[in-house]
Amino acid sequence: MQFELTSDILVSLKDAIEEKNSLYLQDQLHDLYAPDIASIINQLNLQQAAYLYELLDDEIAPNVLLELDDDKREDLLTTFSSKQIAEQIDNMDSDDAADVISELPEELQEEVLSHIEDIDQASDIAELINYEEGTAGSLMAKELVSVYAFETVSQCIEEIRQQADDVDVMYAVYVLDNKERLIGIVSLKKLIISHPLARIEEIYEPDIQYVRTNTDTVEVGEYMQKYDLVVLPVVDQLNRLVGRITIDDVMDVIKENTDENIQRMSGISDDVDSNDKLWRLSRARIPWLIVGMCGGIIGSRIIGTYEDQIKIHPEMAYFIPLIGAMGGNVGVQSSSIIVQGLANNTLIGDNIAPKLLKELGVGLINGMICSFLIWSYAFVIEDWQLAATVSAALLTVVLCASFLGTFVPLTLNRFKINPALATGPFVTTLNDIIGITIYFLMGRILYGYF
Amino acid sequence: MQFELTSDILVSLKDAIEEKNSLYLQDQLHDLYAPDIASIINQLNLQQAAYLYELLDDEIAPNVLLELDDDKREDLLTTFSSKQIAEQIDNMDSDDAADVISELPEELQEEVLSHIEDIDQASDIAELINYEEGTAGSLMAKELVSVYAFETVSQCIEEIRQQADDVDVMYAVYVLDNKERLIGIVSLKKLIISHPLARIEEIYEPDIQYVRTNTDTVEVGEYMQKYDLVVLPVVDQLNRLVGRITIDDVMDVIKENTDENIQRMSGISDDVDSNDKLWRLSRARIPWLIVGMCGGIIGSRIIGTYEDQIKIHPEMAYFIPLIGAMGGNVGVQSSSIIVQGLANNTLIGDNIAPKLLKELGVGLINGMICSFLIWSYAFVIEDWQLAATVSAALLTVVLCASFLGTFVPLTLNRFKINPALATGPFVTTLNDIIGITIYFLMGRILYGYF
Repeated sequence: MQFELTSDILVSLKDAIEEKNSLYLQDQLHDLYAPDIASIINQLNLQQAAYLYELLDDEIAPNVLLELDDDKREDLLTTFSSKQIAEQIDNMDSDDAADVISELPEELQEEVLSHIEDIDQASDIAELINYEEGTAGSLMAKELVSVYAFETVSQCIEEIRQQADDVDVMYAVYVLDNKERLIGIVSLKKLIISHPLARIEEIYEPDIQYVRTNTDTVEVGEYMQKYDLVVLPVVDQLNRLVGRITIDDVMDVIKENTDENIQRMSGISDDVDSNDKLWRLSRARIPWLIVGMCGGIIGSRIIGTYEDQIKIHPEMAYFIPLIGAMGGNVGVQSSSIIVQGLANNTLIGDNIAPKLLKELGVGLINGMICSFLIWSYAFVIEDWQLAATVSAALLTVVLCASFLGTFVPLTLNRFKINPALATGPFVTTLNDIIGITIYFLMGRILYGYF
Repeated sequence: MQFELTSDILVSLKDAIEEKNSLYLQDQLHDLYAPDIASIINQLNLQQAAYLYELLDDEIAPNVLLELDDDKREDLLTTFSSKQIAEQIDNMDSDDAADVISELPEELQEEVLSHIEDIDQASDIAELINYEEGTAGSLMAKELVSVYAFETVSQCIEEIRQQADDVDVMYAVYVLDNKERLIGIVSLKKLIISHPLARIEEIYEPDIQYVRTNTDTVEVGEYMQKYDLVVLPVVDQLNRLVGRITIDDVMDVIKENTDENIQRMSGISDDVDSNDKLWRLSRARIPWLIVGMCGGIIGSRIIGTYEDQIKIHPEMAYFIPLIGAMGGNVGVQSSSIIVQGLANNTLIGDNIAPKLLKELGVGLINGMICSFLIWSYAFVIEDWQLAATVSAALLTVVLCASFLGTFVPLTLNRFKINPALATGPFVTTLNDIIGITIYFLMGRILYGYF
């Protein structure tokens, strides 16, 4: 069903490009959709990419351009004249066109805009590129159908005829007052069944959800997802309708945000993917490794203070990895549940106590199970003091880790810091240190007393 | 902009419910949308929930029912008669109605269906509940507009008038041949600008993307996301059009899938959320904790074989946590990049070697940086043998972890196992064990020779 690029296909395409076998290539690409062709071009070097792009027909080429990786698109556009770029952009939706143009160097942007033949398109793009990145304004498109409340149904249908582009999906018609302010919506069904001379103001639905141009895109995504909206109008500070956001654009935002959160959880501090350059991948990962290393050094200092005890009871060292690992695992489990609850709004964020209690409950159950297992093991294999130490320390560590795994993300969230940070190396490192401290403290007490 | 349920609001609503202050409650709920009201009911006990639900007006009540947590909905429906359930379901979209009915006990399902007044709706639902969960059939809705290729444009517009429900968004009109097979699509624009007596077969677009009823829902989600589709038709084995899937339904699937992957990464084996019962939360987490514990026990056995060395050089124990933590961190970083690359199709899955080399490159750079830092620290604070042991072991561990973090998810993917599993406790535990082995081996060699 879905095209999958294998290395065999890639090799044969590269060979054909080297041989400039344009007939073979056009034949191969003919049945593919834009995202598939883009996935091929993403794997080519600049020269190969430019050659293949040249072969595409005018209809699909702009869509392929949009689907390319940002870096690859930037590279490819350096081989184009500003007039060529303008040609590609002329038929894009205004939001896509603005995205492409805003990636260009500033002096080139004006030049490209001046080459765009459709004046309306050029002025729409010029407006859109001025919105700050990460706001609803930067995400919206100008293509929409609107009518004034004082118009009649038949005028409205004529308007649709003129405004509606060649779309498969027809979104709602927005209703404006005479100051261009958004006051409601009218469904297509309503238009079809109403009398042609009825006025829009008699039939429109005044209850309408919208966002402002400066609303954060992640918030827009959550909003559309929560209320199951396929399209959402955008208004300016004066409530004038200026654009609309569709769900497919928002899905990209949601996806980027999820990917970023997963990277935070994994201790990667920058948005990278596996095709990025070596040094970028390294740089994105080194900060959390250094944090982890500092944690390890603190751990070494703590163990260092128990040097005498280790000399007498070297078996204490055996269970250091177990204690550390269990603290880390439990902490990640707790915080990931909390982070997801916060992201899905199934948690009420302002009341921490019941969640803490519940997580401690889970920690107590699982801690007791694990404690009992490790006690049995150590009692049989080692001695009873070690068994007591390890199992008591393990239970305490699991409880501590449950506490921190709940408390840290809820607290970060309260201070408007991304709680996903807490699920990563930070909590793990903290739990490691706390675990070792508890373990050796328990050891000293138990071996000391008995 | 967005309603946020705080514990203050919740307390005042609960009080009003206890006092049966229906006027206050109706006033409070009046301006809220269905997902907001559902988020309130999710926090109530069954008696409170049933009382509040009774107060909702008929238009919003079915939508609230749909937005409730599955458990809460199931509970609430037990307080309804089958006739009452049928009333709620009668006005839902067929896919939503089928979801609700399929959650009911089987003997109740038929009873509810028999009470549904709209015969078409009842037969649509009866068809939908038979599709296997997790397939496109179980996700699709029956509401769509289709015309035969031999019809005229004016017949088609009449069809739309009859078929189109009260929708804000009008999806494409599907074109069928005389055997009900899907052969194409016709845009609304095309219908509006074409001559009323033109036949659909002269104006329709034959290039159309679709899925089959038995396609996996996650695949449907990836497909719609990849090709930026807002709606996708579903056909049966004979290519007959049987339904359509819209992007909002698919978003829920994508979200569930992402949440599940994050839980896998965090060592949680079941789909749970923070509102689930204590024992369910415990049970979902214990398997990976036990895996982690087995890893810890293996670690203890390995360290145990170096008991003599620890007695002489107790400082060897200091850096056990550091080595373990760094292996874990690097492994998670590598595997998370690979898992995301696979999920986003930016990686070609069949050619492992270049990715391994690249990850090893990143590991080498970061490993050398960390190694150098820890060498400097240990050389100053401890002695040069320990400095050499820790830094050499750290570099080796980082390289090993990079290798495993790349190799394991790519291999799992090749055998069609969810690669996200590899990002979780499995790789971490493995890296822990390997790290300790390398560390003590290095120690024996270096302390032995010098």
